[in-house]
Amino acid sequence: MWGGSMKIALAQFNPVIGDFEGNVQRIISRIQSARELGCDLVVFPELSLIGYPPYDLLIQKDFIESCQKALEDLLPHTKGIGVLVGGVAAIEGSEKLFNSAFLLEDGKIIGQVNKNVLDDLDYIDDSRYFQEDKGTHCLEFRGLKLGVIISGDLWMDSKGSCIKYCPEDIFMKLYDQSPAMFINMAASPYHYTKQKMRADLASCMADKYHIPLLFVNQVGANDELIFDGSSMVFDSKGQLILHGKSFEEDIIVFDSNQNYNPIEEVREDISWIYKGLVLGMRDYFHKSGFKKALLGISGGIDSALVACIAAEALGRENVLGVSMPSRYSSEHSKNDARKLAENLGIEYREIPLEPFFREYIRAFNGTDQTLGDLAEENIQARIRASILMFISNREGKMLVCCSNKSEIAVGYSTLYGDSCGALAVIGDVLKTQVYELCRYINREKEIIPENILIKAPSAELRPNQKDEDSLPPYSVLDDILQMYIEENAPVIDMERKGYERQTIFRILNMIDRAEYKRRQLPPVLKITSKAFGLSRRMPIVQRFKWSE
Amino acid sequence: MWGGSMKIALAQFNPVIGDFEGNVQRIISRIQSARELGCDLVVFPELSLIGYPPYDLLIQKDFIESCQKALEDLLPHTKGIGVLVGGVAAIEGSEKLFNSAFLLEDGKIIGQVNKNVLDDLDYIDDSRYFQEDKGTHCLEFRGLKLGVIISGDLWMDSKGSCIKYCPEDIFMKLYDQSPAMFINMAASPYHYTKQKMRADLASCMADKYHIPLLFVNQVGANDELIFDGSSMVFDSKGQLILHGKSFEEDIIVFDSNQNYNPIEEVREDISWIYKGLVLGMRDYFHKSGFKKALLGISGGIDSALVACIAAEALGRENVLGVSMPSRYSSEHSKNDARKLAENLGIEYREIPLEPFFREYIRAFNGTDQTLGDLAEENIQARIRASILMFISNREGKMLVCCSNKSEIAVGYSTLYGDSCGALAVIGDVLKTQVYELCRYINREKEIIPENILIKAPSAELRPNQKDEDSLPPYSVLDDILQMYIEENAPVIDMERKGYERQTIFRILNMIDRAEYKRRQLPPVLKITSKAFGLSRRMPIVQRFKWSE
Repeated sequence: MWGGSMKIALAQFNPVIGDFEGNVQRIISRIQSARELGCDLVVFPELSLIGYPPYDLLIQKDFIESCQKALEDLLPHTKGIGVLVGGVAAIEGSEKLFNSAFLLEDGKIIGQVNKNVLDDLDYIDDSRYFQEDKGTHCLEFRGLKLGVIISGDLWMDSKGSCIKYCPEDIFMKLYDQSPAMFINMAASPYHYTKQKMRADLASCMADKYHIPLLFVNQVGANDELIFDGSSMVFDSKGQLILHGKSFEEDIIVFDSNQNYNPIEEVREDISWIYKGLVLGMRDYFHKSGFKKALLGISGGIDSALVACIAAEALGRENVLGVSMPSRYSSEHSKNDARKLAENLGIEYREIPLEPFFREYIRAFNGTDQTLGDLAEENIQARIRASILMFISNREGKMLVCCSNKSEIAVGYSTLYGDSCGALAVIGDVLKTQVYELCRYINREKEIIPENILIKAPSAELRPNQKDEDSLPPYSVLDDILQMYIEENAPVIDMERKGYERQTIFRILNMIDRAEYKRRQLPPVLKITSKAFGLSRRMPIVQRFKWSE
Repeated sequence: MWGGSMKIALAQFNPVIGDFEGNVQRIISRIQSARELGCDLVVFPELSLIGYPPYDLLIQKDFIESCQKALEDLLPHTKGIGVLVGGVAAIEGSEKLFNSAFLLEDGKIIGQVNKNVLDDLDYIDDSRYFQEDKGTHCLEFRGLKLGVIISGDLWMDSKGSCIKYCPEDIFMKLYDQSPAMFINMAASPYHYTKQKMRADLASCMADKYHIPLLFVNQVGANDELIFDGSSMVFDSKGQLILHGKSFEEDIIVFDSNQNYNPIEEVREDISWIYKGLVLGMRDYFHKSGFKKALLGISGGIDSALVACIAAEALGRENVLGVSMPSRYSSEHSKNDARKLAENLGIEYREIPLEPFFREYIRAFNGTDQTLGDLAEENIQARIRASILMFISNREGKMLVCCSNKSEIAVGYSTLYGDSCGALAVIGDVLKTQVYELCRYINREKEIIPENILIKAPSAELRPNQKDEDSLPPYSVLDDILQMYIEENAPVIDMERKGYERQTIFRILNMIDRAEYKRRQLPPVLKITSKAFGLSRRMPIVQRFKWSE
């Protein structure tokens, strides 16, 4: 079936959303690289001219015009080489658009295919913007037929079973036209375990149709979504033969004439989450023009992890850690915070909370006596946020939020307090995974002081407070959270795992009741199949009861 | 075409999302009322068993089971009367659902139709949850054919032109089966000018097919969406003959045997927005079990308006206004705030900001001298939020946010400061409309002190600050905001209205740059065609340039 020969570059690149001028320049430079590598064709990810996801920018006419202009600007740079690039096409008589791939060569658009299966799951709202194109066809290029499929996440359903959402009929329709290869242009955000799912399905499709499959994916982070790249090529037996870098830009070249030996599948481990979060934080800052971050470091494990990620993402010289001990802070907290900052080499300041706290106690209690109520607990977190935002406003450093997924889930945090920040760096990381990540960071030497890893978690907002006074043990909590939030598991499944109904209902009710706090969260870097934010849209005011 | 005779009750009722037990009870009591009124059939709105919009609750299996159980619980209460109620139906082999209308009678389900045109505009994500049902058919009831159409917002497009999104082919398919009437079961949230659009389209359809049209709509607010009810009946000439109350529960009865005279179209005016906001605030509080509200009252117009709405929604005895004057507050501000509270009869407290402010100045400046920078401006708003949240936590009162749409749009507000609160009551009201609403409130006597209405708006965060030092005049700003946000107008249209490119670009860039603040906003009560929140999904980090 495969006659001719072709050298194809897969350019996994990092666009900035809406930065047409910049994206075009970056695309041109990759076209040049592909040319230098002797390629016939260079392939870019889904919506590569725009950057994915542009959300409602797609509704603005001026935006769409700029996108069309960007495509024209690219044309003069396609002399002697084919360029397959993602953009949008207006549709006569419709307010919706096609999500399109354009094939360019020698200054002309020589082919176009449109996305033919729309996706409306998770954070994706294809139907809000796009119209499905039922007319599936191959693109012709230099005598070969290319079976181009545009898809972000059509590779799998929310549980990773590839069967249901796989556009099988699209593959079949393309197959009927005898393509030389399948090319999947994707903007598929990462979550832990996803790469294996993609590889399994791509391999399965290549093998089934005995046609090589090229998967090219966007890389870089846009708001909450982290794109890992990890482009792949499978031969006609479904064997992996080429693999792009993960969490970095890369170009991989597939030569149809060459004989490739199968290579080993890339194994995901905890380091992928770490690298993803580093990329997520770096792109959030750099793409919005910020260099410097600050965060409150409490001596606890969450802020320790975020400090490490920040130092890696921005450079230690660009990170300020502020410790704001209160009368309830333990000595070890202050020491651990300082030690952490020293180990990381980040700037460190200590600002005592006491004078501010005393002012509130006097104003509201009429004496220096505390009542020990919720108001007094929360005000400490809110004063800390005010101090941090004062520094942020004065020094132009962007505040990051250190809340983890477990506490965000059950509302164990202070709104306008520890939930403040421009980005919730570990807001999709369960507490048990926070420990795993910290152990990964400490794998060679002690960066996070060991004491932070072994002491019992505490908010230290009242004397001798411990998280487990208010919450079930994190091992139980995290397991139920994962089942409920990520897997949408019914209660019966949780019971089957041995959890008591009372514990389950307690946790589920805590989650539902905390929705109002989550509505005001900063964007959460997504590293699981279901992060808080646009991926999970819940009413605040509702009375569904988790009990009989 | 119309043979038999029938008496039909349209029950516009106010469900609580997910409160199956309560909703079923409320539905039963309305069935009883319809029975007492001698009706053959009672019709409820779209998804009436569940309450609209349930968002991702629809993804939980346990939730769907409870919904099916609720339908069964309703069956025994349908002796001798037809009940047309909205719910969902699971689909064999699919993770999606049908958005269905069930016709019940004498303990049995005797008919079912499913929504046949899905909507993915604005806040609506039908495709995320539902599958389209192409098999359009009439329901048979007591010898009559009912052409039932389930639709939230299919009546119009975003600009109010009814043609494009009107499911004309659905009407035609139903018409081919000779229905005695069209019945539109809706959950259509209100925005200003919408009722006229609905009436125009419904009238046009009834007239076109010479078939009466009954429109029954949900009433009550759920989070940001306010449903106005305003159910209507049109005769076969397209004349309005019955009209339900707006912003209240109601039952209207249509007797097919009776001769009706046409009634006058209901005219929307500013009072509709006021009533909508009152209902929105009341339901947000009461449905979540809160009785009491607090807010900061500054002596400015925004907090004055919110205080009036709160007093109306919750009762003046349930509202606390807190004035927190700073060294930059004018005398008139303090007086105006106190006077407003007196006029309204709400509780009033004054808590001076100075001691708290001084503490921050000392800690950060090392002296009592201020620098007059942004940090010092913002800290005042943040101290105010901390004070209000202290009271909220201690006294169990829910804080409401007083930010208006104009300042939210351009980011003229302090994150974690004046943007704090559980609900942004006037977050979809432009500043110029804030004045209109206040004049409406004062139409009979001075409730809002006149001085609040005439003085120049100021944040009073530095000496002699005025809004118009930092912003274009509100008349210009609001016009451009409306064109950009609500109408998605291209820049060229704004220029055609006589605005300078520089002014336009300045405003559009301010809007885009403030996205990070909006992401952390409380829910905004929606009263225009495009409110901030789920209706408008924008990336935070993006570089689309509004200039050439």
